[in-house]
Amino acid sequence: MGITASTTTGTDKLPEGDSESVSPQVVNVADYGVLPNGEDSTLALKAALEASKAKGATRLVFPKGRYEFFPDFADEAYLYASNNDEGLKRIVFPLVGFENLTIDGQGSEFVFHGFVNPFVVEDSSRIAFEDFSVDFSRPFHSEGIIVEEHDDGMDVRIPEEFPFRVRNGLLVFIGGEQEEGMLTTVSRGGVYGSGHLLEFDTEKRQTAYMARDYYFNGTASYPARNLGNGVVRLLIPGLVGTPGNTLVFGPNHRDHPAFVVTRSEDVSFESIVLHHAGGMGILAQLSHNIRVNNCKVTPSHGRMLSTTADATHFVNCTGYIKLTNNLFENQKDDATNIHGIYVQVVEVTEPNEVLVQLKHRQQHGFDFLHSGVKVEFVHGKSMISFGEAVVKESTRINKEFTRVVFERDMPEDLEVGDVLASIRDYPEVTISGNTIRNNRARGMLINSRGRTVVEDNYFHTPGAAILFEGDSFFWFEQGGVRDCVIRNNVFDNCLFGVWGKAVIDVRAGILEDREKSRYNRNIRIENNTFRIFDEVSLLHAYCVDGLIWENNTVEKTDAYPPLDKSFKRFDISYSDNVIIDGEPYVKD
Amino acid sequence: MGITASTTTGTDKLPEGDSESVSPQVVNVADYGVLPNGEDSTLALKAALEASKAKGATRLVFPKGRYEFFPDFADEAYLYASNNDEGLKRIVFPLVGFENLTIDGQGSEFVFHGFVNPFVVEDSSRIAFEDFSVDFSRPFHSEGIIVEEHDDGMDVRIPEEFPFRVRNGLLVFIGGEQEEGMLTTVSRGGVYGSGHLLEFDTEKRQTAYMARDYYFNGTASYPARNLGNGVVRLLIPGLVGTPGNTLVFGPNHRDHPAFVVTRSEDVSFESIVLHHAGGMGILAQLSHNIRVNNCKVTPSHGRMLSTTADATHFVNCTGYIKLTNNLFENQKDDATNIHGIYVQVVEVTEPNEVLVQLKHRQQHGFDFLHSGVKVEFVHGKSMISFGEAVVKESTRINKEFTRVVFERDMPEDLEVGDVLASIRDYPEVTISGNTIRNNRARGMLINSRGRTVVEDNYFHTPGAAILFEGDSFFWFEQGGVRDCVIRNNVFDNCLFGVWGKAVIDVRAGILEDREKSRYNRNIRIENNTFRIFDEVSLLHAYCVDGLIWENNTVEKTDAYPPLDKSFKRFDISYSDNVIIDGEPYVKD
Repeated sequence: MGITASTTTGTDKLPEGDSESVSPQVVNVADYGVLPNGEDSTLALKAALEASKAKGATRLVFPKGRYEFFPDFADEAYLYASNNDEGLKRIVFPLVGFENLTIDGQGSEFVFHGFVNPFVVEDSSRIAFEDFSVDFSRPFHSEGIIVEEHDDGMDVRIPEEFPFRVRNGLLVFIGGEQEEGMLTTVSRGGVYGSGHLLEFDTEKRQTAYMARDYYFNGTASYPARNLGNGVVRLLIPGLVGTPGNTLVFGPNHRDHPAFVVTRSEDVSFESIVLHHAGGMGILAQLSHNIRVNNCKVTPSHGRMLSTTADATHFVNCTGYIKLTNNLFENQKDDATNIHGIYVQVVEVTEPNEVLVQLKHRQQHGFDFLHSGVKVEFVHGKSMISFGEAVVKESTRINKEFTRVVFERDMPEDLEVGDVLASIRDYPEVTISGNTIRNNRARGMLINSRGRTVVEDNYFHTPGAAILFEGDSFFWFEQGGVRDCVIRNNVFDNCLFGVWGKAVIDVRAGILEDREKSRYNRNIRIENNTFRIFDEVSLLHAYCVDGLIWENNTVEKTDAYPPLDKSFKRFDISYSDNVIIDGEPYVKD
Repeated sequence: MGITASTTTGTDKLPEGDSESVSPQVVNVADYGVLPNGEDSTLALKAALEASKAKGATRLVFPKGRYEFFPDFADEAYLYASNNDEGLKRIVFPLVGFENLTIDGQGSEFVFHGFVNPFVVEDSSRIAFEDFSVDFSRPFHSEGIIVEEHDDGMDVRIPEEFPFRVRNGLLVFIGGEQEEGMLTTVSRGGVYGSGHLLEFDTEKRQTAYMARDYYFNGTASYPARNLGNGVVRLLIPGLVGTPGNTLVFGPNHRDHPAFVVTRSEDVSFESIVLHHAGGMGILAQLSHNIRVNNCKVTPSHGRMLSTTADATHFVNCTGYIKLTNNLFENQKDDATNIHGIYVQVVEVTEPNEVLVQLKHRQQHGFDFLHSGVKVEFVHGKSMISFGEAVVKESTRINKEFTRVVFERDMPEDLEVGDVLASIRDYPEVTISGNTIRNNRARGMLINSRGRTVVEDNYFHTPGAAILFEGDSFFWFEQGGVRDCVIRNNVFDNCLFGVWGKAVIDVRAGILEDREKSRYNRNIRIENNTFRIFDEVSLLHAYCVDGLIWENNTVEKTDAYPPLDKSFKRFDISYSDNVIIDGEPYVKD
């Protein structure tokens, strides 16, 4: 199985409007009424997609232009996208059951309007996305310029492109296009619910130095008074920020990721520009062989934010994951996270039967315990694997709970609170030639047991540039590298924010038996350049077996004010076989 | 087809735990582990329901006791319940595809916990509910006692049974049981979102005199400061209320109606006590023959509110609807509404084909335009019917839009903006012997074209006691009575609130051609007693053909202060054939 997309990119561009004569395997969307004329192309696109499938077309071509997509006539499906929010979605490109199709944008802009999900790829193979941009006319987040701080909060000036109203003491962001009808007991309206505040440095276009997150759990609006002329007084005790900086109002959901790839094979992204999504940029789950090359996640229209969550994210994937030559900037979360999912044992019902629960809200509906799947049993507190089994059959009770019967009895020391995850063809990960900068939080979260190479990247992240984790009490993400190389990267003044202990941060959610539990193994960090503005930690390692630190360069800068704390350059605990610059590491 | 329930109620009570010997058609839930022992009975109940179906049992018996039901192991389905909120629900009693089953509670209490939907009846027939109560441990609304008014809002004391927190300047109601985890970008938590405020008179246990609704469209929380000891300062400009009165915080959703009945026949409710629901009490749609007898919708535990929306509600039903000998009190909306649904024409695509839209958010997913269904075409602004047709086939685009092909061409004067509704065996409606009091808004909304009799009821409603309506611009509810009698009722000091122009209010959303459009027809109002505390309107009628007012008694009281406006006792316009006390009505 190969990716066809990368070999044809940049060649074979079709003359506009004349596709049928070129090849019967090419469908030109214009022939189906998908036109860059300002009108909603959603319904016509559906016809073009159906025709592509019926004809066995291998290429769906968009003559270069700006295409508009609205939710009204979009397909609808209840979508579970791990680490995003489930729900009934309107899907503009529902690529379900497709084989061997390239969506060729020829440099087009795809502009989405309202509460809509751009792309879903499901049960498909050999799907390539090439050469187009994705944006939303009204982003799911909003922004304002900080005017001044007050005792009871802060004044912000909100530009017209982020419509809002203040009513009954609450600031609510809205679409601004449609009129809002009469208010009744059943009104809800076109509200762009927000639940997170974060300050960005307007000049540097990155999260403000040491800015912290403000979370508003379960709410959609903010206490406020309208001062007129676009200025709103936020009445939030303790809210601080620097006048002139940008306050980003993050959405209170991850309902609208740009691309969701589920149970698919050989999916590639080539020269895609992702300006925005109401959730992650690319979320791939239970899929095999994913490549993202020469893509950009970057804001448009002078906005501070691109996607409102991770740029990319991979869950229970197999084969390979290649992130090469991309720009990931200004997204409101990490550049990537590659991991598996643990379910928790809530009841041992038979020697070979358990009731398990998907614990994290955004993992609900992540059904993977099918017949034939091999799993590992892991002690919840020590994260030590203690056995394996093969699923005989499973019964889904609902999106949270599943009853699982194994072919043989389970290990006898299995207890409620232990977790299990699938053992699979863990993906080989290649992360090379990327620029990661100015987003909230971290760079790359590396949690695959397949061979993992991170090389020739540039990192300028406010938190850890590279994070290893895995736990069974909150995120329930399975990780634990087995063979990981980090080389020839530039880590440029990372850790100017609050999201990390070290530039390279190797963690694990091990609460018990830390003397013997070794979660991450065989990490080699070499030939990298670390530019640091203070004596920050370069490396934090916890419960690691096998780590080599070699030939890395450290350069001091004055990019940021020094931090008001002291760090150890190497902060290593409960680890074995750690070699720093040729010497076995000995804890001070 | 007859209702079996009403003939057997009160007889054949089974000895506890000995059901199997009595009749093979009886299933005792205790035999399946459904026990009144404080434990979650949801999973055991599922087994009992499956056994009932497998055995062809006609009666599922609950030995008298208090049973608890939690969402964890409940069935899950995406539910569209008209006039409530759609969504993925956890359903405790999923009665799908059942025939001839009585759920016999024997006086039991069914207590539901968390975000759960008690009963769904779908594609079933001859289903009877008998002799149990329904309540929620933590209601979806909250309440507080008004301490005092301020320039910037109001202080309220919130009792412990309505847990809340104030954080970042926002008051959020919560479950209070589970701990809330660490706050992250993905937190949402067990929030009991609220979006509506209404003052109740604590002594009289009814909506406060002339209290108005405060709507918070699209939000979940309120601007507030915590003053400690359960007292919260609501920072809502213009919020007024009388110290000592009760402020009810209504939920911002109708996610959890108690009973949803869809595409079913012969469903009866006998001696059911509905203490609470997060939405309507009983919602029946596309169903045939519904009876509600000797039931109560009434608050428990000293709460001010019972259900958070209408007590009962019937959409596109057929056969009969009987509401007899019930108590409907303190629900946060009308006692009933019986109506059809209009879809709007958004495009005429062929002479016999239209694209139609379900316009109201809470009607989405209400699919009724199936092959063979007969529809009427109605002009959107005049509400005049101008033709009929039979559906040949329809294609659902999504929950909002459907493409409909008719057997013959549609009327030529059909325009975008016109609406259509099904012509069907409109239900015969019997509303007799009920007490309706102290709820928000109106009593009975009477919008069936079948014979409708409202007799021997007692009404004490803050709005209109009886309302006729129907429009094609906001609610899109089809009405228009053809034969309606209102007799021997007591209307006791209604209109002490803001929700009505007259005790009996006959409206229609007619915006054009009001000289000739006659929406409601043949209404007889006789032998009723009207107790009024001011010269309020007894009757408002608009665009009616045929109305007789005869032998009604009016008694003046001093139950409330006089209103600061003047009313006409009969406010009649654009109507024909109106006879008041034997004389043709002539407009002053």
